[in-house]
Amino acid sequence: MRILVVNVNTTESMTESIAAQARAVAAPGTEIVGLTPFIGADSVEGNFESYLAAIGVLDRVLAYDEPYDAVVQAGFGEHGQEGLKEVLEVPVVDITDAAAHLACLLGYRYSVVTTLDRAVPLIEERLMLGGVADHCASVRASGLGVLELEGDQDVVLAAITDQAVRAIKEDGAEVLVLGCGGMAGLDAAVREATGAPTVDGVAAAVKLAESLVNLGLKTSKVRTYAPPRPKTVVNWPLHRLLQR
Amino acid sequence: MRILVVNVNTTESMTESIAAQARAVAAPGTEIVGLTPFIGADSVEGNFESYLAAIGVLDRVLAYDEPYDAVVQAGFGEHGQEGLKEVLEVPVVDITDAAAHLACLLGYRYSVVTTLDRAVPLIEERLMLGGVADHCASVRASGLGVLELEGDQDVVLAAITDQAVRAIKEDGAEVLVLGCGGMAGLDAAVREATGAPTVDGVAAAVKLAESLVNLGLKTSKVRTYAPPRPKTVVNWPLHRLLQR
Amino acid sequence: MRILVVNVNTTESMTESIAAQARAVAAPGTEIVGLTPFIGADSVEGNFESYLAAIGVLDRVLAYDEPYDAVVQAGFGEHGQEGLKEVLEVPVVDITDAAAHLACLLGYRYSVVTTLDRAVPLIEERLMLGGVADHCASVRASGLGVLELEGDQDVVLAAITDQAVRAIKEDGAEVLVLGCGGMAGLDAAVREATGAPTVDGVAAAVKLAESLVNLGLKTSKVRTYAPPRPKTVVNWPLHRLLQR
Amino acid sequence: MRILVVNVNTTESMTESIAAQARAVAAPGTEIVGLTPFIGADSVEGNFESYLAAIGVLDRVLAYDEPYDAVVQAGFGEHGQEGLKEVLEVPVVDITDAAAHLACLLGYRYSVVTTLDRAVPLIEERLMLGGVADHCASVRASGLGVLELEGDQDVVLAAITDQAVRAIKEDGAEVLVLGCGGMAGLDAAVREATGAPTVDGVAAAVKLAESLVNLGLKTSKVRTYAPPRPKTVVNWPLHRLLQR
Amino acid sequence: MRILVVNVNTTESMTESIAAQARAVAAPGTEIVGLTPFIGADSVEGNFESYLAAIGVLDRVLAYDEPYDAVVQAGFGEHGQEGLKEVLEVPVVDITDAAAHLACLLGYRYSVVTTLDRAVPLIEERLMLGGVADHCASVRASGLGVLELEGDQDVVLAAITDQAVRAIKEDGAEVLVLGCGGMAGLDAAVREATGAPTVDGVAAAVKLAESLVNLGLKTSKVRTYAPPRPKTVVNWPLHRLLQR
Amino acid sequence: MRILVVNVNTTESMTESIAAQARAVAAPGTEIVGLTPFIGADSVEGNFESYLAAIGVLDRVLAYDEPYDAVVQAGFGEHGQEGLKEVLEVPVVDITDAAAHLACLLGYRYSVVTTLDRAVPLIEERLMLGGVADHCASVRASGLGVLELEGDQDVVLAAITDQAVRAIKEDGAEVLVLGCGGMAGLDAAVREATGAPTVDGVAAAVKLAESLVNLGLKTSKVRTYAPPRPKTVVNWPLHRLLQR
Repeated sequence: MRILVVNVNTTESMTESIAAQARAVAAPGTEIVGLTPFIGADSVEGNFESYLAAIGVLDRVLAYDEPYDAVVQAGFGEHGQEGLKEVLEVPVVDITDAAAHLACLLGYRYSVVTTLDRAVPLIEERLMLGGVADHCASVRASGLGVLELEGDQDVVLAAITDQAVRAIKEDGAEVLVLGCGGMAGLDAAVREATGAPTVDGVAAAVKLAESLVNLGLKTSKVRTYAPPRPKTVVNWPLHRLLQR
Repeated sequence: MRILVVNVNTTESMTESIAAQARAVAAPGTEIVGLTPFIGADSVEGNFESYLAAIGVLDRVLAYDEPYDAVVQAGFGEHGQEGLKEVLEVPVVDITDAAAHLACLLGYRYSVVTTLDRAVPLIEERLMLGGVADHCASVRASGLGVLELEGDQDVVLAAITDQAVRAIKEDGAEVLVLGCGGMAGLDAAVREATGAPTVDGVAAAVKLAESLVNLGLKTSKVRTYAPPRPKTVVNWPLHRLLQR
Repeated sequence: MRILVVNVNTTESMTESIAAQARAVAAPGTEIVGLTPFIGADSVEGNFESYLAAIGVLDRVLAYDEPYDAVVQAGFGEHGQEGLKEVLEVPVVDITDAAAHLACLLGYRYSVVTTLDRAVPLIEERLMLGGVADHCASVRASGLGVLELEGDQDVVLAAITDQAVRAIKEDGAEVLVLGCGGMAGLDAAVREATGAPTVDGVAAAVKLAESLVNLGLKTSKVRTYAPPRPKTVVNWPLHRLLQR
Repeated sequence: MRILVVNVNTTESMTESIAAQARAVAAPGTEIVGLTPFIGADSVEGNFESYLAAIGVLDRVLAYDEPYDAVVQAGFGEHGQEGLKEVLEVPVVDITDAAAHLACLLGYRYSVVTTLDRAVPLIEERLMLGGVADHCASVRASGLGVLELEGDQDVVLAAITDQAVRAIKEDGAEVLVLGCGGMAGLDAAVREATGAPTVDGVAAAVKLAESLVNLGLKTSKVRTYAPPRPKTVVNWPLHRLLQR
Repeated sequence: MRILVVNVNTTESMTESIAAQARAVAAPGTEIVGLTPFIGADSVEGNFESYLAAIGVLDRVLAYDEPYDAVVQAGFGEHGQEGLKEVLEVPVVDITDAAAHLACLLGYRYSVVTTLDRAVPLIEERLMLGGVADHCASVRASGLGVLELEGDQDVVLAAITDQAVRAIKEDGAEVLVLGCGGMAGLDAAVREATGAPTVDGVAAAVKLAESLVNLGLKTSKVRTYAPPRPKTVVNWPLHRLLQR
Repeated sequence: MRILVVNVNTTESMTESIAAQARAVAAPGTEIVGLTPFIGADSVEGNFESYLAAIGVLDRVLAYDEPYDAVVQAGFGEHGQEGLKEVLEVPVVDITDAAAHLACLLGYRYSVVTTLDRAVPLIEERLMLGGVADHCASVRASGLGVLELEGDQDVVLAAITDQAVRAIKEDGAEVLVLGCGGMAGLDAAVREATGAPTVDGVAAAVKLAESLVNLGLKTSKVRTYAPPRPKTVVNWPLHRLLQR
């Protein structure tokens, strides 16, 4: 089985660390292919960049010309998965949804700890659209920008853990979700620091994608995600424009 | 005052009819500028095309280099307004939100009559995200594609009115909303046929945009729609790419 | 166009300041008529007074015998608009609803700052009934009674701003709504003090009423607001009783 | 114990039948006093009349000068109970709320069968405001006006039963609520015809009022229903005006 | 009338104090029979014990071989009432539901003060399932275990009152609910300490059970609580097993 | 890895078919152990039997004395998982929750097709408690009892497919969930008949349990599912009683 794990930003090193996290949890026989968009921001921290990412991810997947079995969109709280689901046949799993689904199985309420305060509304809306907001106790910001997550790991961990502890004490969280693709690999440390099960979205998405593929389940084509109707689309896909 | 009214699809004739509808209701002294994206589909009827439209509209507005006071996004149930709000200083009004807000003032419950069944979920989600879903009785599909709206107007009106009447009788609607930018101008006929006040989104959005401008109200820059953080964005904006 | 702006309490000076605020934002050609009920309390700060106001406003409008195009009910969180909508042909806009509708267009979440704590439930319920509660982050009380709003403006502004800042920092508000007709005219100062767009209900209602009139939209008579059935009503209207 | 049972309309014969229903279920030692407002409509079937009733009931209770232990407001889905709660010390029970509370104890979902379609929104809103809407499967209209309920009882029963059966079959109702004070006494017949427990609001309210009095429980004066603040109220109460 | 009041735990002294509280509020002519399960924990403070209680209570009621008119399940936030409703003909009233229903009649919002933090989710879920969560401002834990409630009453009262005061000041509660069968009898003291009406679940349930019986209302057998279908059930009821 | 798959009823043949379904989807290296309770009904079709199942499943798991890595509770819409989560260290996955979680990933809305109408409320409540009800379009009953599912497979399939098609056409379902453990193995046929992805709960639960185990994720012990407090529990566990 081959799973495309697509970063939402254009920072190659982040694609690599995301792919590494994916490989660490993939089943034997699952090949992980990390992809970086050709267009977009080096970090996605708001709606403008998130909409660019929606198109950047879609464009990047369409440019990939080998067969594959599932796609993981590796951005937390970002736009775009509905477009992928419409265009593709294979299952598409967003890391936000994936983390929330597993978190629901593990406790009464979960909280998300993300990067900047401005990302909180995007995540709240994504959880609502994904149908998994009911058990969300809170979405909290660590105050760290996406690219700062690659800095001193002690500082990063302290900022995340601080909010995680508050989520447990003040918001009633029993499970934690790491709310950024760039936090991949920190779950064990946060779990140890807080005593609460901690879900990493990339890892969760890979296991859910594998599960769907193993069960032969694909995105429904009944209505919302039926293939686009045939029509004229100008100046698309972008990777062809870029090659001119 | 100058208001940019941006079509979400790339069909120029539709831009023109939308702009005409806008001009028909604009106050004396309001200039309406109709804009068509450089990229995207000739009609938007699903998530793939809607995400393209989000970027196409944003790109088109950024390419406009005269001053303006407000932007109307003239697509029903489409993605993208949050990106515009982040990037721009002036008010941004989506025709979906605008129609729903006015409809709430006119009766206990309103229904939307749109084009295809597959557009229903996008509209339901947009109303929810806009905070105006509580009084929505139903979103109904006429079965007409966007471009079919430019066909025989008797057929078009009959299909819309049929669903409008059902919304009133079966769903408890007391107010109707025309759920497609391409339905601009049909409101009077639907109102006459059903006896219920009928809101056209383009008209509603123009009046709301004028109201905000007159009251000196702009999009909040406090958190969600603060300007994007400075960062590297590659291959953007698209209109520069296209000019190469 | 003539708009009746009806105060909910019997304090004439407050009617005048509300009408002045309405005139300040009205379009050229819009005539504002301020009305004061013949019955009721000099300030409305609870359910007893609010129900009196519902009848007092209705009675006062029925006593007005010139033509008019719309009615604005200038009380925040008060009862009564449904009765007006039933009895009248022209649009009726409540300042609570109006402010909330515009606030939804300007940011992710809005908060209301009102007078006394006991008014909070009335406002919460009115927002819920108006279908605009979803994006309300909080309703906060400044602790000032309605008539205290006419006192030292520095003190008044400080009390309102204090709660507005908390709404932004603690509740996630991005837009502010001034939650009392008696706060008309303070919006600019609160906006300056907080950096957040601040909506005054009277101003918002006047622009929405003008918009509805310009678009030819009236209250639906389909079901809820159909004219009252013919029947015997004793000792009504009150202004005739008072003239005996 | 003395309970005031206040009709919301000005039809004396209806007050009498409501009081008779109340007496039929009252405990030994409970005295029922039926009251009719001095102002208002002979039947309440919409918002205008309901707001008049709110004031009419309040005024009538204030005119009653003997001691009493509780008040039952005998109108289904009407405005006004919040004003009574503010002004009075003793418990106030609305028949809408009372019926819904008991219905929740008896099955998974309940439906209300009321008079005219235009009354449905008022009832839906009252159940929501009362905090008892979650288990409401539907509010259905029999098509009978309030005063028609005093007509041929076979016709009346057939119309109510028809909707009750649909509520069970189509909406999932397991319990029925008779949605009009004028239906008092029909509960046994509807129960027999449908096989579902059927709650009459007047009966329910009397038992709940007795329960509260027996337990020494009164309306909270902590915030919302604290006594009105001292202030100038002109031309109130109405019964004094009428005596001039 | 005979009402069975069934304790959820196996501590006889608690059964007695619950029955005493029930008797204190019962009408003349109502006989209260206190029952203790043959199986289960000496205090119920979590899901494991609550599920045991569900079966323990059911088994205990089935072992009771005299006639009775209603059953009160005297555990706060516990599982099981749906099973009783299915198996029995007579009304079944849970003390959680009962307290919440009466609390809704007395103020805008109520809060529950219970024992341990781990009981909070069970109570929140029970209120949601009972359809009475909408007006719940908060469920707060006093930190006292169930059996600690029988200790020094000054300490107990102080711990409960502390949370009750916070519920009023911080959560907007206007009415209090004592969230444990073991708190029976403390309502007067909490009311005096806080100034807010305070509802005891056992007392509330007894009055509601009496009301239902007096009105001739029984659990609906229409769907959810229809009698169990005839089938093979092995090793049940437990009291027969225990007698072997 | 060893997963216990526990049937909720006492019909051994159903345990075997459930275990067979589990084995069919389990990863290489996953051992499936099917368990049947010692107490309870031969089919679970209501609350009484479901509460018995809650205790029967718990008792059966406690009687299993080999090591294991996860537990699957194989009953649709049944009580009990919260008790298992409290008592056990390993992950517990209920088939209702599991199916709903996967269904959310595959389309905009899903519907459940279950056995009898009386099971519908139990499933609705379980989905709500599991935090996965938001995207549920409907729960529909095929009219077949649990044990009838082992009858003529053409009849069974026709009854299920009939409701599945209605769910798609009338309720907006895009994904189907088979709402009974006894429907294990019918997913492929329903998918073929309807064109919609069809999720079997047992299969879904096995893959989710494997995923959690592979990711090292266990039930949170932070609050709700902390181990029961040490206390006296009489006549428990049942399997010891039965051995007497």
